This record gives sequence, structure tokens and C-alpha cells, in this order.
Amino acid sequence: MHRLRSKIRDIPDFPIPGIIFKDITPLVKDPAALRLAVHLLLQPFLGRPITAVAGMEARGFIFGSLVAWELGLPFVPLRKPGKLPYDVQNVSYDLEYGSAMLEIHSDALADTDRVLLIDDLLATGGTAKASCELIEKLGATVEACAFVVELDFLQGRDRLDGYETHSLLHF
Amino acid sequence: MHRLRSKIRDIPDFPIPGIIFKDITPLVKDPAALRLAVHLLLQPFLGRPITAVAGMEARGFIFGSLVAWELGLPFVPLRKPGKLPYDVQNVSYDLEYGSAMLEIHSDALADTDRVLLIDDLLATGGTAKASCELIEKLGATVEACAFVVELDFLQGRDRLDGYETHSLLHF
Repeated sequence: MHRLRSKIRDIPDFPIPGIIFKDITPLVKDPAALRLAVHLLLQPFLGRPITAVAGMEARGFIFGSLVAWELGLPFVPLRKPGKLPYDVQNVSYDLEYGSAMLEIHSDALADTDRVLLIDDLLATGGTAKASCELIEKLGATVEACAFVVELDFLQGRDRLDGYETHSLLHF
Repeated sequence: MHRLRSKIRDIPDFPIPGIIFKDITPLVKDPAALRLAVHLLLQPFLGRPITAVAGMEARGFIFGSLVAWELGLPFVPLRKPGKLPYDVQNVSYDLEYGSAMLEIHSDALADTDRVLLIDDLLATGGTAKASCELIEKLGATVEACAFVVELDFLQGRDRLDGYETHSLLHF
């Protein structure tokens, strides 16, 4: 784990003063470390009845598609408004300042699907919670959520109460 | 190839009237088709002296990270302005209406790197050309560009004159 932790770079005062941003680009630049991270990320779910992996734009596309690839499962992208071209369902959610929206294609999942939600970072949990709601809007079930990095002090896990939540690295 | 072609969905009048958008979500939702696409995408480059794979936000993150994963190479994300947290280099480029900018982390590549650039779609070639310039701004070399879909009638390939360019599917 120390090897992975050293691949997450602290960037002070990004995107605004006072915030220490967790930069995952050193991790995706190191093939051996990335392989370890992706395999540890999916390891709790081997043998589980998961039928699809969903990932949030944009960094969630990297980890989500790699987990889906390794599990041999469909990858379902969750995107910012106006990006998905087919019929969509959407969910609005609150950010620290203002609000945001996330969309999913209406035909991305069936009501029999059991979905593993993947993102690089669990912060306040707003995006992750909205993603779970989107998945459920299509009648599918959230099997679990998994993140590379969790910022414990932001208590995003509390917002995901009722959802099984895993993270590789805690800060 | 017919199998892959059937996984690219036409969406008429998206994002604006008169445009037929090529939707790759059916492809990423089909693990066997995606496996075929990614392996065909990287096949011309096996044994070549490539040291890194770059992909453009956001759909390029899916195909780029999978190609990098399969080749066992670093993945370098190219992003829209303000998204990469560390020191960046940027390139502005013209769109049909207005302009856009793309960024890369200053330390993402060394001058010895030979980069395979991956994106889902080659349209006018504006984004791809800007991506090549970004890679070269860091002193690295563009070994080749590869796309899942190429819209031949937009002649993006002409804009990439001088760069080796491959596409899986032509429309």
C-alpha cells in the first residue's frame, strides 16, 4: 500500500486556496503500480454477482474501464450534462458552491443489473451518491462502490450510508 | 469489423441539427467487442518503440487507458483547461465555432518518450493535432495516432499530415 500511496501526489491550493488536491496522474503513469491498484480495487468483488461497472467522467473513466476490462463486464459511463447523445436520465446534486448534474443513458442498464460503481476519489460523496441514484433510476441495483482514494475527513462515506463502500487509500 | 461497426450507434441531430453523432457507448457496454476493438487498435504498434500512451478527455480516457494497460505502458491524460492540478503546458486550437484549449502536465513525458496518441474519434482533427503539439511541447515524439472511428468526410487525416494515423472504422 505504501507503494500506491507514494503515487498519489499532493497539490496544495488546487483548485482553490486551502484545498490539498490528490493527483492520481503519477499512479496512471506507472504501469506496475496501476496494475496493483486496479487489482486491489476489484479484488473484494471477485465471485460477486456484478453484471456491470459504472464510472464517472472523467477520471472515473480510467479506473472504471480498467476494472470493467479485468472483470470482463460492460462499462457504463456516467457523464456531465449534454455529453451523452442518446436518451438520458439525470440527477442533480449539491456541491459546496452551487449544484451539478450527472447523466446516464436510459438503456445503459436493465433492472436485473447489479452495478459496481468506480471512481478515483471519494470526497464529500455528492457525486457518488448521485451516481447511485442514477443507477437506481434505471431500476438497477448498486452492488458496491469502490474508490482509489478516500478523504476520510470529508465523511463522504456517511453520505453513502446503505451502500457497501471500499477505498484503497485513506487520507 | 462488421461486428464492431454494429456497436457504433448513429444519433441524428446531436449535438446540433444536421450532425450525426457516432455513439461509442454500445461498444464499451459489450466486453467482447471492446476487447476486439482495443486489440485491433494496438495491434499495428506491437514491437514498436512506444514508451507511453496519451488519451484525450473524456472518451479518450477509456480507450487510451485500456491500450496503455494492454501494452504495459504509462497512460498520460490530456485534459481541458483547469483540470490538471500540477504545472501544465497548453495548446489552443480552433473549433468550428470559437476555440478550445488542451493541457498536459509538464512532467508527464520526457524528451526520450515516443507516444501513441489514442482517441475514440477522428473528426476534423483539431483536437488530435493540438494533442500532438502538446506532446511535442514537452520534447517527446508522436510515434502514431490511433482512433476507433474516423469520419472520412471531415478530412481530419489531412490535418494530421506527417503523423502516422490509423483508424479501425471509417464512416
